[in-house]
Amino acid sequence: MSIHSVTRSQFHLAWDNSIQPILRVQSGDTVKFDCLDASNGQITPDSTAATLTSLALSSLDQVNGPIFVEGALPGDTLQVEILSIETADWGWTACIPGFGLLSDEFPEPVLKIWKLNKDKGFAYFDEEKGIKIPLKPFAGEMGVARKEKGAFSTIPPSHCGGNIDTRHVTAGSTLYLPVEVEGALFSMGDGHAAQGDGEVCGTAIETPIVAELRLSVLKNRPYTKTPHFQTSIHILNETYYCTTGVEPNLQDATRAALRHMIQYLGAEYGLNPVEAYMLCSVAGDLRMLEVVDMPNYLVGMMMPRSIFPNAGTSA
Amino acid sequence: MSIHSVTRSQFHLAWDNSIQPILRVQSGDTVKFDCLDASNGQITPDSTAATLTSLALSSLDQVNGPIFVEGALPGDTLQVEILSIETADWGWTACIPGFGLLSDEFPEPVLKIWKLNKDKGFAYFDEEKGIKIPLKPFAGEMGVARKEKGAFSTIPPSHCGGNIDTRHVTAGSTLYLPVEVEGALFSMGDGHAAQGDGEVCGTAIETPIVAELRLSVLKNRPYTKTPHFQTSIHILNETYYCTTGVEPNLQDATRAALRHMIQYLGAEYGLNPVEAYMLCSVAGDLRMLEVVDMPNYLVGMMMPRSIFPNAGTSA
Repeated sequence: MSIHSVTRSQFHLAWDNSIQPILRVQSGDTVKFDCLDASNGQITPDSTAATLTSLALSSLDQVNGPIFVEGALPGDTLQVEILSIETADWGWTACIPGFGLLSDEFPEPVLKIWKLNKDKGFAYFDEEKGIKIPLKPFAGEMGVARKEKGAFSTIPPSHCGGNIDTRHVTAGSTLYLPVEVEGALFSMGDGHAAQGDGEVCGTAIETPIVAELRLSVLKNRPYTKTPHFQTSIHILNETYYCTTGVEPNLQDATRAALRHMIQYLGAEYGLNPVEAYMLCSVAGDLRMLEVVDMPNYLVGMMMPRSIFPNAGTSA
Repeated sequence: MSIHSVTRSQFHLAWDNSIQPILRVQSGDTVKFDCLDASNGQITPDSTAATLTSLALSSLDQVNGPIFVEGALPGDTLQVEILSIETADWGWTACIPGFGLLSDEFPEPVLKIWKLNKDKGFAYFDEEKGIKIPLKPFAGEMGVARKEKGAFSTIPPSHCGGNIDTRHVTAGSTLYLPVEVEGALFSMGDGHAAQGDGEVCGTAIETPIVAELRLSVLKNRPYTKTPHFQTSIHILNETYYCTTGVEPNLQDATRAALRHMIQYLGAEYGLNPVEAYMLCSVAGDLRMLEVVDMPNYLVGMMMPRSIFPNAGTSA
């Protein structure tokens, strides 16, 4: 099995099956990707909220690739084993106008720059308050080309993956993607140092990453029609506080659960609303608690207590 | 602090603040509830699918109570500490026509009777295949009366709780409910031996329960406008397999994630569709993986591998 490399300049800005592959690999080969953050290098540790208003939007959410995997044919499954992911020593989280689950309630641009303590595996959200986020790096974008001709935005995910923003596909996890074109044409990017289920403010802890992935063609999984994945979870007696939304529309229930957590974090931890919104994005998990007792859905926003000091002693 | 008892015959069939309390307790008192299952005793270990077609629907989803908690006033929060929950030695799961996330795709009544191995803490879903579900009992219904006059169905949850069907409020967890009428008027019922996030087929492992709850009035939580809860999670290196739905509508994405898991369980474990649907309801978790990369939401249905034999060796 060979090891290949992809540099940060080898990217593309749309999902398009006519883009020529930068590399051809055998099934079972490993590829090491060096990826800029999702701003394509436009945001740096010195950036401010003003930087957000001048971003070249057409350059965002680049993905590195595409990789042609020999033997991959339409109807096959591409297995992507995440062998390792390393972040930079900094990251950013932003409220970008028009983007995010509560974008109508948070219209102003806000940028937060993080220092990532990679040795200790956490980043301070607020050092004075002692709020810190465990780092669990993953790539927000992993996908293959679709069979349809044309150029598709890299911002929404599709049935072929792309911007899946799924925090569980960390090192040790395996992603499965449906192959629709010969060679699969796999690309990836959008490094995240940490994120909650939902990525509610629209951004995670965004960061450059170096990732090693092993790409293999599977012939016996015709049921892979959207991204599937396998992951291991290890939670040692973590306490969660959960707010809920109860509404006849799933979207409204989700927004309400988030809004209630923002109110709770303000009342209990003195966070202002936009701080709390960003904290939910990087550390809070949206779960569907019940989706059957009509007409009301119940959605939960679950926040681990261990990110706060003195976790477990408060009630 | 006193300990009070509520019998299985002390129930009501609607949320209605004009129902007279069966008990008055002090803040901090413990109440031991003896509750029939959500069929109000109509389903027994000898029932069959035919029983489902003759259920008296007006008697379903009874809740035991209401309890008047002295000192509880509108604007307060009722703290419900779940001290213990014990199930019966049997339970049931059903597909009830017209009920469930895929009710249009599963129109036939199906009833499954479970034997609950309480000593060992699991129940076989399929003994021959070695598929078994860990028992984590909780009450699906916990709520207080609303300020609005009238009788409201006990099937949908409301901002005052009720049929929250939230699997995380097990023994050791704490639920917080907004008080809207003097005395709070707390009731509970709907015992579940196990359930996944979502309760997708519309039922869990339904079972009679005996539960001990401590009810306390909190004056300093004006932000409790919907159910909140605190829970501890302990997962020792569990592996999950996750299917996804990727759709421009959250409801469609949720249904697709479930449908894909049903297909996967059929292909990999030989389960027929309705068996797989019920397995998802009692053991699979719906998570919102991303809700911001418009126009497509990504919802995951996560299934723990440890419910299957030889977990971890398969890929």
